[in-house]
Amino acid sequence: MLTIPDYRLRLPGPTMVPERIRQATALPILNHRGAEFKAMLAECQKRLKSVFGTAHDVLIFAGSGTAMMEASLANILSPGEKVLVVVAGQFGDRFVSIAKALGAQIDTVDVEWGHTLDSTRVAERLRQNSYRAVVMVHNESSTGVTYDIAAVGKVLEGASTLLVVDSVSGLAGAEMKMDEWGADIVVSASQKSLMCPPGIGLAAISPKAWKVMERDGRVPSFFADFRRAKASLDKGETPFTPPVTLVYGLLEALRMIDEEGLDNVIERHRRLGAALRAGAQALGLELYNQPGTASNTVTAMKVPQGLDGGTIVQHLRERYRTVIAGARAARQTGKVIRIGTMGMVSEADIIMDLRHLEATLRDLGQPVAAGAGVRAALDALSVQH
Amino acid sequence: MLTIPDYRLRLPGPTMVPERIRQATALPILNHRGAEFKAMLAECQKRLKSVFGTAHDVLIFAGSGTAMMEASLANILSPGEKVLVVVAGQFGDRFVSIAKALGAQIDTVDVEWGHTLDSTRVAERLRQNSYRAVVMVHNESSTGVTYDIAAVGKVLEGASTLLVVDSVSGLAGAEMKMDEWGADIVVSASQKSLMCPPGIGLAAISPKAWKVMERDGRVPSFFADFRRAKASLDKGETPFTPPVTLVYGLLEALRMIDEEGLDNVIERHRRLGAALRAGAQALGLELYNQPGTASNTVTAMKVPQGLDGGTIVQHLRERYRTVIAGARAARQTGKVIRIGTMGMVSEADIIMDLRHLEATLRDLGQPVAAGAGVRAALDALSVQH
Repeated sequence: MLTIPDYRLRLPGPTMVPERIRQATALPILNHRGAEFKAMLAECQKRLKSVFGTAHDVLIFAGSGTAMMEASLANILSPGEKVLVVVAGQFGDRFVSIAKALGAQIDTVDVEWGHTLDSTRVAERLRQNSYRAVVMVHNESSTGVTYDIAAVGKVLEGASTLLVVDSVSGLAGAEMKMDEWGADIVVSASQKSLMCPPGIGLAAISPKAWKVMERDGRVPSFFADFRRAKASLDKGETPFTPPVTLVYGLLEALRMIDEEGLDNVIERHRRLGAALRAGAQALGLELYNQPGTASNTVTAMKVPQGLDGGTIVQHLRERYRTVIAGARAARQTGKVIRIGTMGMVSEADIIMDLRHLEATLRDLGQPVAAGAGVRAALDALSVQH
Repeated sequence: MLTIPDYRLRLPGPTMVPERIRQATALPILNHRGAEFKAMLAECQKRLKSVFGTAHDVLIFAGSGTAMMEASLANILSPGEKVLVVVAGQFGDRFVSIAKALGAQIDTVDVEWGHTLDSTRVAERLRQNSYRAVVMVHNESSTGVTYDIAAVGKVLEGASTLLVVDSVSGLAGAEMKMDEWGADIVVSASQKSLMCPPGIGLAAISPKAWKVMERDGRVPSFFADFRRAKASLDKGETPFTPPVTLVYGLLEALRMIDEEGLDNVIERHRRLGAALRAGAQALGLELYNQPGTASNTVTAMKVPQGLDGGTIVQHLRERYRTVIAGARAARQTGKVIRIGTMGMVSEADIIMDLRHLEATLRDLGQPVAAGAGVRAALDALSVQH
């Protein structure tokens, strides 16, 4: 039998999968076109709608978050068509690379990494140009910043331009009110705050986006054509073999979220993220993000002068069996460390993270006040919101 | 906890997943960029090479078989470029749809469904036209026919045209000697004879195919760009988050295949397929495929006059808890039933299939000789190959 090492997985995704979900994914395979599996898909879709904050369609694919970022553009962009991409981190960069592969014309709004977006900059560009879509990342896991989708949605109100949002690392950990905010395509994946194994991609689609897709002709993909997925959805199926056991896991995860209450889940993410940031700062670590921009789900910290991020990550793993992430982008290499607060995370995890982080900094010769991180986190946790 | 009904899954994929593999997929998530997971990927790749019959690269993706069929064309075809697609069933049709979505110019060699391919027809087309690729299906699960890849490979010997093969339902159940046969891109998926849950797509690539990809410019996909996957493979990784737990399952499956011996696995598929066909014929069911074309992994049977395929499938499910497949394509609806011999299947499964099939035919008013199917299967199983 396969054995794997036992460590604490504290990445900004993939995240730890609760036992209950892991066991669901080990159940035998059902016929993916049979009544029992269709019922599961229908229940997933219903519960996903509330997580996305939409009354409309949610499509389920075999794929990763990147596959869904690509699908979100491939379905609405004809070659040569114009998009405006907000680039505020590694995943904004990825949207640009994807749009390039699709042959789109790309303008960008470049935001300093870790900083907020001034939505009037998007408004200004829209006055100068006509875009098929504004494309942005909800939660930049490379920088630990959550962006205000509603503000950009407001800019696009009444316009024909679509708003495409990557919420891979945001969904189910940060608030998402797709319909209310005016987002048209929101994509996500299973392995972040949805606390499932990776392998499921999700796309929620507004009626306005469907209209664009129906009007237009060729989508340069057969597999990822949303219209084909929608036709199958209307029959309660997926067009191609779905990742059956991962759908079991997703259904179990969505039931768990509903048992806890979606608002409570998001508030838990917020509290834990705040506590982790408070603790990190008390350990002398500067946050990568500017004040007021912080993500519920990812804490990105600057590495102190004279230390290397890779060394911290390695020491935490080897000495304390805790796996965190280093830099996401080449330009950040060695300069940032990142910890997720996504999915099945508790106060105890944050305390443990800060204990290990404190010990690691001390082991590496950094002066840290004993217990400062944990104390600050406990103080933050005791604050009523 | 999620519960699922208990039935015998006898589809031509997804197939029953052995307990050992199911438990592997329930293990906790590892860091997908860590040393332990890289070692697993490397072991998968090494073992997959022998299953594909190649000394070259095997890429692992999150996706379905269709996603990989699409990737196999997207990576080598620029819009307007010419491909020759062998269409002998539903999955040949699918290749045509995919090539259309990609904007390719498509010629077809149309083979009567259930019949063999005369490879001189391919040779003839190649004399008349220049094609970037000949595209074909190794094992047409819609008709129960396996095609001779080597014969087409021989036709292409020395030519610049690539040979692209869908072996989604063939690999690990039917012989595959990619290098020897001259195939350049062979795609497959986890949920057929590899006896894993669906969600992993595979692509094996020849040096000749890499040369075409390196020479050419834009691939109209970022996610499925094989060159990007290859660059990550060379570092022991996947470019995007892989379906970690399904990779655990794949590794366990590949170890099981090596324990049994690949040749023994394929011989088991052959014997069981032959036994199932013998039994079905003894029950008065005509095979969909012509003699000498039969697939190891899928048996397609014509539905007797006056009966409906859907009724047989439904009765088998409701009365005997056995889930088989009906027609794959609209033109076959009601006229064909299909049973898989893929993956973790034993003699006992075939006997049980034939018992239930006999009972179903009798329940539906068909005259069948008691025990004829099982006896014929046992006779077939007793023949030494």
